[in-house]
Amino acid sequence: MKNNYKVNSKLALFFVIAFSYVGLSQNSDEEQIKKLYDTALTEGSGYDWLNYLSNQIGGRLSGSIQAQQAVDYTKAQLDSLGVDKVWLQPVMVPKWVRGTPEFAYFETNPGATTNVAICAIGGSVPTPPRGIKANIIEVEGIEQLSSLGKDKIQGKIVFFNKPMDATQINTFTAYSNCVDQRYAGALEASEYGAVGVIVRSMNLRLDDYPHTGSMSYGEQAGSERIPAAAISTNAAELLSTSLKLNPDINFYFKQNCKQFDDVESYNVIGEIKGTTKPEEVIVVGGHLDSWDLGDGSHDDGAGCVQSMEVLNLFKKIGYKPKRTVRVVLFMNEENGLRGGNKYAEFANAKNEKHIFAIESDSGGFSPRGFTFESSDKDFEKVLEWKNLFKPYLVHYFEKGFSGADIGPLKKDGLVLAGLRPDSQRYFDHHHAENDTFEHVNKRELQLGAASMASLIYLIDKYGF
Amino acid sequence: MKNNYKVNSKLALFFVIAFSYVGLSQNSDEEQIKKLYDTALTEGSGYDWLNYLSNQIGGRLSGSIQAQQAVDYTKAQLDSLGVDKVWLQPVMVPKWVRGTPEFAYFETNPGATTNVAICAIGGSVPTPPRGIKANIIEVEGIEQLSSLGKDKIQGKIVFFNKPMDATQINTFTAYSNCVDQRYAGALEASEYGAVGVIVRSMNLRLDDYPHTGSMSYGEQAGSERIPAAAISTNAAELLSTSLKLNPDINFYFKQNCKQFDDVESYNVIGEIKGTTKPEEVIVVGGHLDSWDLGDGSHDDGAGCVQSMEVLNLFKKIGYKPKRTVRVVLFMNEENGLRGGNKYAEFANAKNEKHIFAIESDSGGFSPRGFTFESSDKDFEKVLEWKNLFKPYLVHYFEKGFSGADIGPLKKDGLVLAGLRPDSQRYFDHHHAENDTFEHVNKRELQLGAASMASLIYLIDKYGF
Repeated sequence: MKNNYKVNSKLALFFVIAFSYVGLSQNSDEEQIKKLYDTALTEGSGYDWLNYLSNQIGGRLSGSIQAQQAVDYTKAQLDSLGVDKVWLQPVMVPKWVRGTPEFAYFETNPGATTNVAICAIGGSVPTPPRGIKANIIEVEGIEQLSSLGKDKIQGKIVFFNKPMDATQINTFTAYSNCVDQRYAGALEASEYGAVGVIVRSMNLRLDDYPHTGSMSYGEQAGSERIPAAAISTNAAELLSTSLKLNPDINFYFKQNCKQFDDVESYNVIGEIKGTTKPEEVIVVGGHLDSWDLGDGSHDDGAGCVQSMEVLNLFKKIGYKPKRTVRVVLFMNEENGLRGGNKYAEFANAKNEKHIFAIESDSGGFSPRGFTFESSDKDFEKVLEWKNLFKPYLVHYFEKGFSGADIGPLKKDGLVLAGLRPDSQRYFDHHHAENDTFEHVNKRELQLGAASMASLIYLIDKYGF
Repeated sequence: MKNNYKVNSKLALFFVIAFSYVGLSQNSDEEQIKKLYDTALTEGSGYDWLNYLSNQIGGRLSGSIQAQQAVDYTKAQLDSLGVDKVWLQPVMVPKWVRGTPEFAYFETNPGATTNVAICAIGGSVPTPPRGIKANIIEVEGIEQLSSLGKDKIQGKIVFFNKPMDATQINTFTAYSNCVDQRYAGALEASEYGAVGVIVRSMNLRLDDYPHTGSMSYGEQAGSERIPAAAISTNAAELLSTSLKLNPDINFYFKQNCKQFDDVESYNVIGEIKGTTKPEEVIVVGGHLDSWDLGDGSHDDGAGCVQSMEVLNLFKKIGYKPKRTVRVVLFMNEENGLRGGNKYAEFANAKNEKHIFAIESDSGGFSPRGFTFESSDKDFEKVLEWKNLFKPYLVHYFEKGFSGADIGPLKKDGLVLAGLRPDSQRYFDHHHAENDTFEHVNKRELQLGAASMASLIYLIDKYGF
């Protein structure tokens, strides 16, 4: 009995010490994370930065004056934070310009025309100066082209009308499942002799905003390229219904967009040097360019200011990271990914050791969690921290896609992550005229920044 | 060895059977729940109903013509669903009318006036016809009145300026922590001789909308009652800053709101009779009345149409509940709770056996989960279902407040619950002119309805 008692007593002592230690460490993490969230909600600068980017600068398409203004502005703001180093990384980017507003109508009978809202898809060639008018034929998606064949498509405008699947809870999945018609619709339809394509906007809601986005002609010769435009979901529904009543409808559209030679632009980079492991780099970023129709508040002004906020929060709470924490505002995610590629190229050339990179490029909505591209071992480690996020209702920790700009960094041993905000409203605004500042809620934006800062804090402290 | 093998083999068989059974049952629940969500997202009627309530009827303050129109409209819609029984439950409600738009300014020097946005708080007495003008004194909250005392307050207007705490992740907690100044500020300040009160709007955002809400004079004699108005957060900040520069500021306000005698109104009720246990009742509800400034889309048109949608979804997927599932659209939550009290009174008088009641009255935002008022045992049972909600990102299952209207039903053995949507944007709109339809996202609204329907499906199937 006595002996037993001694063993138990020793064991008890061991547990007391072990749990105190864990308790202390957990407690301090809880406290630091609470400080990060409190500071983000009460003293953050992200919302003000976004206000400037959105309302003073506006849409920031690669190669535009606004993109350059955004480079200058964010560099100046990072400078003013007093971080250790701020610099610009030159990168050549494509320059595509929309030109004068597009115009389109469909004609059920000669003279009986209905105007519809369209916009050129980014990278499209223009129509001839007087526009194109041709019979229009509806398809559900690219896969339907071959069953119709050249006979039915030749000389016509193809109307891609595959809707986003409303039953997907993650709206990005619905997007992935039909964005091929926007990206490759023109290339594919031209193989069947189509003279133009009209694509249903990637929008789960019925409204009057056409949504632009990127497309590619691959290696197609310039003379074979056909113009492509997106049509609003309301107009797509109307056109589709009209085609059911009368399959013989002419569609007219005119756009004078133009591709210029590449121009020089920049990734904007700032960092806090690590105290004990400065050679290990943690990246947090978003993309500074946006489409031209709205002001790019959700896509991706939000991700940029949230990333800048991470450094700001560390400064404000006096946290000095062991590792180097670097914000990267990537240029040209939307129509080229040149910034992401350039950053990875430099990092590799300098043999920098990146241990973690996270991107915010899914809107400034309430953060729900993170997705990770990592080994099982590293993912297990991340899951141990999940409970620390529970008070902030950040609950979604899953393996999955991280972000386009940090993708080129991918290599064994590097963990990539993406911030996952609530996705329900994202495609109401994505690439459209109504991606504007008033649709961003300050608290939701700041909670996203705090969530990234907290995860980076843990990774900096404990490593992988 | 052989014997052992036999035992193991029997055990194995047992597990195969047991797990197949569980597997089957789980699977069928998963399928039913997926059907509910899919149907809500593709064929639901909630958003259209809300469009009508908000845009064709508008704000539905108790006793108003709009409240009566909302009773008629929702009854007709429930009738058209072909549920087993639809009826109106009469209830006498207070009738308070705002009158002509309020007007207010503050005066730093004679003639140097700044107009500010105010609205009468619901239930307030009017000012005299020509308004009130008096020195204004700022306090942080009710608790500060006693330290100032009658000397400093007598004859003045008291300006309650306690802000909502931005560090609360659940914005309803921030609301609870300072709403006493709106509810009881006039009563308390009048005890110190104040002649009126101006209350900072319950809004976490800085903007120009004053937010109304309810207040009470308790048993105070009519002659002692002083008028109360809410001021927008931007104006509250401006006034507070001005008072720091110059404590001697006069404030003027005028409002001619009026309390009339009670009038008759109705709870709107519809139900699907249970197949095998019709005597056990499950209630789902929201409140049909709203404040008068906006159109009451989030508060609580959303909760009403989500509750109606539950019956609609059961009909659409062909689910016949074992128990009676009843939607109740309560009248007069905002300024009296008469509908909630009346419903409980009738249910008790008829000795009805309610086993579960859930309310949606926290806005039509992305559903995050539920709160429960229940015994530990019943709560454990609910937690077993939590994983079924994971695909829909519904993750928050906690004990906590359910809803005001179902509160009067409370008794041992009855489980009460509240739908908990994301709360970050709620107080941007709550009780203000901008609680309007365009701020409700269809998918978020419908996901909330499906979440309630799924929980009710499980409770109906398995009971407590």
